[in-house]
Amino acid sequence: MASAPSLEFWFEFGSTYSYPAAEQVERAAKEAGLALAWRPFLLGPVLKGMGINDSPFNVYPVKGRYMWRDVERLCARAGIPFRKPTVFPRNGLPAARIAILGADEPWGPDFMRGVYRANFAEDRDISDAALLADILRRSGAEDPDAVLQASNTLETKDRLRRQTEEAQARGIFGAPSFLVGEELFWGGDRLDQAIEHAKRQH
Amino acid sequence: MASAPSLEFWFEFGSTYSYPAAEQVERAAKEAGLALAWRPFLLGPVLKGMGINDSPFNVYPVKGRYMWRDVERLCARAGIPFRKPTVFPRNGLPAARIAILGADEPWGPDFMRGVYRANFAEDRDISDAALLADILRRSGAEDPDAVLQASNTLETKDRLRRQTEEAQARGIFGAPSFLVGEELFWGGDRLDQAIEHAKRQH
Repeated sequence: MASAPSLEFWFEFGSTYSYPAAEQVERAAKEAGLALAWRPFLLGPVLKGMGINDSPFNVYPVKGRYMWRDVERLCARAGIPFRKPTVFPRNGLPAARIAILGADEPWGPDFMRGVYRANFAEDRDISDAALLADILRRSGAEDPDAVLQASNTLETKDRLRRQTEEAQARGIFGAPSFLVGEELFWGGDRLDQAIEHAKRQH
Repeated sequence: MASAPSLEFWFEFGSTYSYPAAEQVERAAKEAGLALAWRPFLLGPVLKGMGINDSPFNVYPVKGRYMWRDVERLCARAGIPFRKPTVFPRNGLPAARIAILGADEPWGPDFMRGVYRANFAEDRDISDAALLADILRRSGAEDPDAVLQASNTLETKDRLRRQTEEAQARGIFGAPSFLVGEELFWGGDRLDQAIEHAKRQH
């Protein structure tokens, strides 16, 4: 895999548009023969660094109304279940700390997708430890409680903070984003272009 | 054509992403058997109504840097010439007043595309009357000076103002946008979905 061109998928669990992207990215990367790196980060600090303190979808209701309809349409087209969550954006911090531990684990991808489905198809509180343990279990993690505990260590918190700083440093300002080397693609609708770009790097 | 399902293309001459969309929309609508309505409006007043007083691409430099690269890539993929303009956003008001007169004229589509190319491929000042007269001439308008004069009447100014109010009233908050009935699609990358939606209305 070391020589396969790599696609980095940068995502935030509170982000609506990251949900269909998270459902599609693994298969798309596999079909293209690309190594996929799951890169969780926190969008909140990135937006705060730009002077934005709430989701633009909340700040601008006309934009929010459109976004919900657009995501509903995108999911319907892709055959992905969707239910508008009663809370938005949800706190994705605990899940992101687990995700950073799981990015290279066999249970990682199923965990990521499980959290998104809990948020955007099942309308559940993704900051709830019992729910996260349950998703870990269903994703094949051998010891969900140990993972939860490790996710709360200073070391893990620092890793997520550094990864969020890396997102900022590399020009990321929204989620989902894709990086192929330093070439940035923003939005789930740029997945195809990111993959084409990565294939040309061969 | 009265019974053909209709695709409305809402655009602003200062908008970067409207440029490749304007280059592609007519052929795409024709291939799909859709009647196309060119709907110029002013994005400035719409954004002001949301409390936004400059292009978000200027307000957030990280977003602006990405946008220019993204538009460059989009144009390259589509084989459309692109040169980053030295002024952004340019004043599209005089061109929009002409466009509202030309939306149903034989010279309309070529005029729209000519203005976009002047802005985003030739780096020219699209508020310049001599340039606009030249684009009108090259687009086949019989009496460019008469069109310019008509574009400056109170009646035309009112038509553009009302069309901009209509954009707001129908939920438009950015450009380009597509409307199929009251179903809104925002962004050039939603053109295919708008067309699919329109075809299903048959």
